[in-house]
Amino acid sequence: MSNRYAARRQKLWQLLKREGVEALLVTNPVNVSYLTGFTGEDSYFLASRQNSALLSDGRFTTQIAEECPDLDVMIRKPSEGLFSLVAEALRKRKITSLGIDGSHLSFNAYQQLIECCATTEVAVVPPLVEELRLIKDSHEIAEIRLAIDQAERGFAALKSQVLTTQTEREAAFDLEHAMRRFGAKRASFEIIVAARDRSALPHARPTNLPLNTGDFFLIDWGSEAPSGYKSDLTRVLITGKLTAKLEKIYRVVLNAQIQGIQAIRPGITGREVDQIARSVIEKAGYGKAFTHSLGHGIGLDIHEGPRVSPSSETVLKAGMVVTVEPGIYLPGWGGIRIEDDILVTPDGYEILTSVPKDLDNCRLK
Amino acid sequence: MSNRYAARRQKLWQLLKREGVEALLVTNPVNVSYLTGFTGEDSYFLASRQNSALLSDGRFTTQIAEECPDLDVMIRKPSEGLFSLVAEALRKRKITSLGIDGSHLSFNAYQQLIECCATTEVAVVPPLVEELRLIKDSHEIAEIRLAIDQAERGFAALKSQVLTTQTEREAAFDLEHAMRRFGAKRASFEIIVAARDRSALPHARPTNLPLNTGDFFLIDWGSEAPSGYKSDLTRVLITGKLTAKLEKIYRVVLNAQIQGIQAIRPGITGREVDQIARSVIEKAGYGKAFTHSLGHGIGLDIHEGPRVSPSSETVLKAGMVVTVEPGIYLPGWGGIRIEDDILVTPDGYEILTSVPKDLDNCRLK
Repeated sequence: MSNRYAARRQKLWQLLKREGVEALLVTNPVNVSYLTGFTGEDSYFLASRQNSALLSDGRFTTQIAEECPDLDVMIRKPSEGLFSLVAEALRKRKITSLGIDGSHLSFNAYQQLIECCATTEVAVVPPLVEELRLIKDSHEIAEIRLAIDQAERGFAALKSQVLTTQTEREAAFDLEHAMRRFGAKRASFEIIVAARDRSALPHARPTNLPLNTGDFFLIDWGSEAPSGYKSDLTRVLITGKLTAKLEKIYRVVLNAQIQGIQAIRPGITGREVDQIARSVIEKAGYGKAFTHSLGHGIGLDIHEGPRVSPSSETVLKAGMVVTVEPGIYLPGWGGIRIEDDILVTPDGYEILTSVPKDLDNCRLK
Repeated sequence: MSNRYAARRQKLWQLLKREGVEALLVTNPVNVSYLTGFTGEDSYFLASRQNSALLSDGRFTTQIAEECPDLDVMIRKPSEGLFSLVAEALRKRKITSLGIDGSHLSFNAYQQLIECCATTEVAVVPPLVEELRLIKDSHEIAEIRLAIDQAERGFAALKSQVLTTQTEREAAFDLEHAMRRFGAKRASFEIIVAARDRSALPHARPTNLPLNTGDFFLIDWGSEAPSGYKSDLTRVLITGKLTAKLEKIYRVVLNAQIQGIQAIRPGITGREVDQIARSVIEKAGYGKAFTHSLGHGIGLDIHEGPRVSPSSETVLKAGMVVTVEPGIYLPGWGGIRIEDDILVTPDGYEILTSVPKDLDNCRLK
């Protein structure tokens, strides 16, 4: 297990060399966890070629010994600030140039750092750990599969038990509870259950509207596994009449989604995949009703790289995991979105999610 | 309703005058919501004496019209950054000095702000909105009462249904689900259910340990009401034998808690209240086993001012709401903590929470 984290730290070291800094102060807890396996809070990781160290406090001594026994650890005194521990670590290691993540560190924290570490040159570097996290290793892919399994079992349980007289909120809460019965830590984001015209809001919050208030409702949900890895799916469930309009729009979105998925392979850009799916919707005359990007990476964060958007020049590589989620939103009528999680493989793609999406399976019995 | 927010903005203006800045860029979404009623994300509030403005994007146009119709609003173009909107707002208002919250704004965001707004002097000011939030108005107190009611009804439901063969995780998830049935948006933090010696960890995460693995377990929980206001309680439930040790420690903690609560009145400092409760535990010989502060403020955040700690010089005032939660933690044996939410009144205090805490009521039937 420790080898997994050591391998990631080794890769990070290559990026530090590229950026010309001797060390990186990792402050985002998600990134600390990615590089060390430690899952606590309020701790920084000082990454350098040798003598990397986890900087923490006394609450976490036992947890660190369990989660990352191979790491150098510095524990601050209760009276001591975290930045004076950083200064001590830099001094001991004679580090003269330090990279920071300026999009995570607050302005006040930056000022404290500068004051504590006057002899070290501090430079904002690009998001290096996020760059590593673009490509998932086998452990990460297994954890995403687990988060998908929890989400899918939860959805199956909801589908088998839901009453269409329930409200959006009740269905959302029942779904989170069901996913937890199958091992989820929590929903990976605030679940969207949107009936009738509310489904036309891509980020609708669940309300007290009953599910059967229209002909269909939309569910956008996912699980967070205990490891922190996340899944993200969307399906539509039909409670009323399958109107010609509903059927038509559903088939356009489904076709766009399938075309987008089938375009995925190493070497294609996010922009190109987005365009392939988008053009299906445009040709059907609904281009302006697809108001967001086609997809995004998932992993320890529910939104991470690579983006699959009209402006994304990121080249897809084997090991990336992205959502493909086209939608058509018609204010006053409603919206249809279909979302799956896709692994980029050396040969092309693998659809990790398996909830049926043909129209027959969208009907609530 | 709009008067409530206007009154808060009027008070903020007094603080801006004190700090010598013409305007404040409010970036923390909790503070934006406190000052405007707007509950969306990715939006800033530019607070000034006149012509305050909410700076947002097109996703939120409808929501803003519903939630804060009386406010000036500036909506950025999809191609435009939020900071160029800030620059435009400052220019139009001829603002030459701007306060920012340096503990919230990231270093990169600060740099962007400086570049976009070269003619405005930018200064880090103390957390002014947090200063206002120390004293709750009548609406806030009503919302905290609601969050307490949801938490207490959820707890009663759990207590009536829980099987002691269930795991810590199952009980935690059932409790969150129950609170949601009574109107909660979610748990106000990750619920702690800790059996046996795990209760000796003040921040234990629920595991797959069965509740009846020891003689008692501890639950630390709360609800977040749809408005965002939070509650925070702790109780112990006895599943096995009421040993002499358990009874003794429980009575010491309960006595310390009652003494601490009864000390609360306008004019006393957080440090003094902490000391009154702490001395009860010290006299009983468990001083070193009470390893944290006595309490903290609650409101839109689960931890906010005032602190009730050995070093808190904050003077309590009517309208503050704090937790009182002494604990005794004995590694290997377990921990006892009892927590209620207390409103400081002009005459003294009001205990907002009402879950029974005498030993008889801690027994699971």
